[in-house]
Amino acid sequence: MLIYADNAATTKISPAAADEMVHCMKQFWGNPSSLHTPGQKAAEKLAECRAEIAQIMGCLPKEIYFTGGGSESDNQAILSAAYAGAKKGKKHIVTTAFEHHAVLHTLRKLEKERFSVTYLPVGPDGVISAEQVAEALTEETALVTVMYANNEIGTIQPIMEIGGICREKKVLFHCDAVQAVGHMAMNVEELQADYLTASAHKFNGPRGCGFLYAKWGTPLSNLIEGGAQERGKRGGTENLAAIAGMTAALKENISCLEENAKKTAKLRDLLIGGLSEIPHSRLNGSREIRLPGIVNFCFEGIEGESLLLLLDEKGIAASSGSACTSGSLDPSHVLLALGLPHEVAHGSLRLSVNEENTEEEMQYIVDSVKEVVSYLREMSPVWEELEKGIRKFLL
Amino acid sequence: MLIYADNAATTKISPAAADEMVHCMKQFWGNPSSLHTPGQKAAEKLAECRAEIAQIMGCLPKEIYFTGGGSESDNQAILSAAYAGAKKGKKHIVTTAFEHHAVLHTLRKLEKERFSVTYLPVGPDGVISAEQVAEALTEETALVTVMYANNEIGTIQPIMEIGGICREKKVLFHCDAVQAVGHMAMNVEELQADYLTASAHKFNGPRGCGFLYAKWGTPLSNLIEGGAQERGKRGGTENLAAIAGMTAALKENISCLEENAKKTAKLRDLLIGGLSEIPHSRLNGSREIRLPGIVNFCFEGIEGESLLLLLDEKGIAASSGSACTSGSLDPSHVLLALGLPHEVAHGSLRLSVNEENTEEEMQYIVDSVKEVVSYLREMSPVWEELEKGIRKFLL
Repeated sequence: MLIYADNAATTKISPAAADEMVHCMKQFWGNPSSLHTPGQKAAEKLAECRAEIAQIMGCLPKEIYFTGGGSESDNQAILSAAYAGAKKGKKHIVTTAFEHHAVLHTLRKLEKERFSVTYLPVGPDGVISAEQVAEALTEETALVTVMYANNEIGTIQPIMEIGGICREKKVLFHCDAVQAVGHMAMNVEELQADYLTASAHKFNGPRGCGFLYAKWGTPLSNLIEGGAQERGKRGGTENLAAIAGMTAALKENISCLEENAKKTAKLRDLLIGGLSEIPHSRLNGSREIRLPGIVNFCFEGIEGESLLLLLDEKGIAASSGSACTSGSLDPSHVLLALGLPHEVAHGSLRLSVNEENTEEEMQYIVDSVKEVVSYLREMSPVWEELEKGIRKFLL
Repeated sequence: MLIYADNAATTKISPAAADEMVHCMKQFWGNPSSLHTPGQKAAEKLAECRAEIAQIMGCLPKEIYFTGGGSESDNQAILSAAYAGAKKGKKHIVTTAFEHHAVLHTLRKLEKERFSVTYLPVGPDGVISAEQVAEALTEETALVTVMYANNEIGTIQPIMEIGGICREKKVLFHCDAVQAVGHMAMNVEELQADYLTASAHKFNGPRGCGFLYAKWGTPLSNLIEGGAQERGKRGGTENLAAIAGMTAALKENISCLEENAKKTAKLRDLLIGGLSEIPHSRLNGSREIRLPGIVNFCFEGIEGESLLLLLDEKGIAASSGSACTSGSLDPSHVLLALGLPHEVAHGSLRLSVNEENTEEEMQYIVDSVKEVVSYLREMSPVWEELEKGIRKFLL
């Protein structure tokens, strides 16, 4: 038995997307840059995909750049805006403290190049306010980069308001929408984003493929230099099979977005209700302002990793936070950004479900987590100290 | 009918590679960074692929970095070596004038950052000598980057000798081996390369996937910042299905390398023999020192693009040079680097075949090219001038 509750790490590719990939590898295998018939057939297919994604996102096809994934898109957008800003003497960037590492590590690189970065603090609700962004802007601000939905706790940021402020102040705005695209309706024009990042494998598309929306006329420099692909902005033969798979997955998700969101939110709420019964536990981030599928809890007195391994033995695939940092022993930077103390942040559990999960599975997860948390607390010297009053409960 | 003779632009994915991708998407769909069972299964599969590729390339698994393709690998290797050199005051790079644009455009970017680049001239044989490299080295040289086999004309460079010189002089050496990996036996240790670039779709693997060999201890900075994947050197969820497909394709190609090379070289030689009969034509690059599958000819008095379109009507898929620059009206920088005048370089034809082509197809190609070249020359005012002696023949 396997209950997969780690869709925020990666989704399983949908059959429609996988079939489209196989179809493309057989039927549209030419290099889209080639002048001959197999090449031109591939070029037409590529143009179709671009047009379909543009329509879904509410932009022009020429504003969609296909990339190798979310991290690459984030890197390209941020560096493009930063270096364009630097040419005008603007070397300040505003972001939040709980962005994905694809954003934070790119900003860290820029800090070494004497950019200054304001990391907006996030409250326990895991939602920053548009006012925080407005207050952080200076005459030197080149870019604001804020994620749509947090990958660890699932909270949603007021992107449209932030976009409005940035546009008004003529500051470029990038939104890392990796966890949101394909899970929420969105229109880049309404959001007033200048750049927006998406990753196919987070919405049942293939790995190694994503796109970057960049408003026409917005500065865009190459991260990958090379051929004339993607209007000269991204070298490398276009990964048409993956792009077509991504397009199929996005269309499929968008076609039943509300229905899926409703079903998923119900499952999520069963998890929140059940897990909240565990004493000295906490739902991380706002109860309401969150994605339909992501739940993140902290349980005092336990180690997240032990929890995960015991849940895995029970057939539940979950995570403690971002898969991207799972090799690290540090607690999640996201949970620390919410103000959680280290000892609590260590005991985190992220469950990310989708419409294919069932209510019975949610009940099984809740029962299993209750059992495992009790078991781990029985063995935990920290918990003993907490119970004896030697340490103070933080949750 | 279709005779595909554009394998240097992209190969058709092999059935074994495509099957392996589908198998992986079904069986190893977890995120390799996840701690749970589906994640760990994926991590094991990823490690297997890395070990298999390392064995084929003659290096350690930890020296193989999976990337989104050849261009990305080229960019990362070159920037890594350049910036590491700059820290020691070394800002000189040696390359050739006929590298791929993924290399040349990266170097152009570095020139804007005050690096100086020596572009070694290439003779009509399309082969640079190790002595040229040796003479170009200075105390300030941070990197030598030379391609293994040229993508337009197929000539092979003396990589082992160049590697030996670089190692002796303690200069980092990158080899863009995109056209060679999977087509020639090679061992990175013997080559004495510090970095080597490969792209899966050039050897019957999937698009959007490649690898970078980087000798352990050699400077390697991130092109794509993000999570801890690829030992912290390349952010982004590992594209396991594509990596497994690439591994399957490479293993398959390597298992019958000599046999395929022999068969392909025979086909190539039929093309060379037949096309050489066309008056005022020239085989570009050395007759002997070349890949088994690539042939490049110039025909005086015609436009390469018209030739391609008419061949396409006859069911032959070929190219005039690199697909990556097909949107451009400029003649090939590779042919110009060989010393060909503009008017001749415009009339180029690249045919890139593999073991799946047949001798009958080669005969058909030769007959078709002869017919089309004659037809185009009849209509060409330039040809008229050449025949009347108003212009001088250059070939």
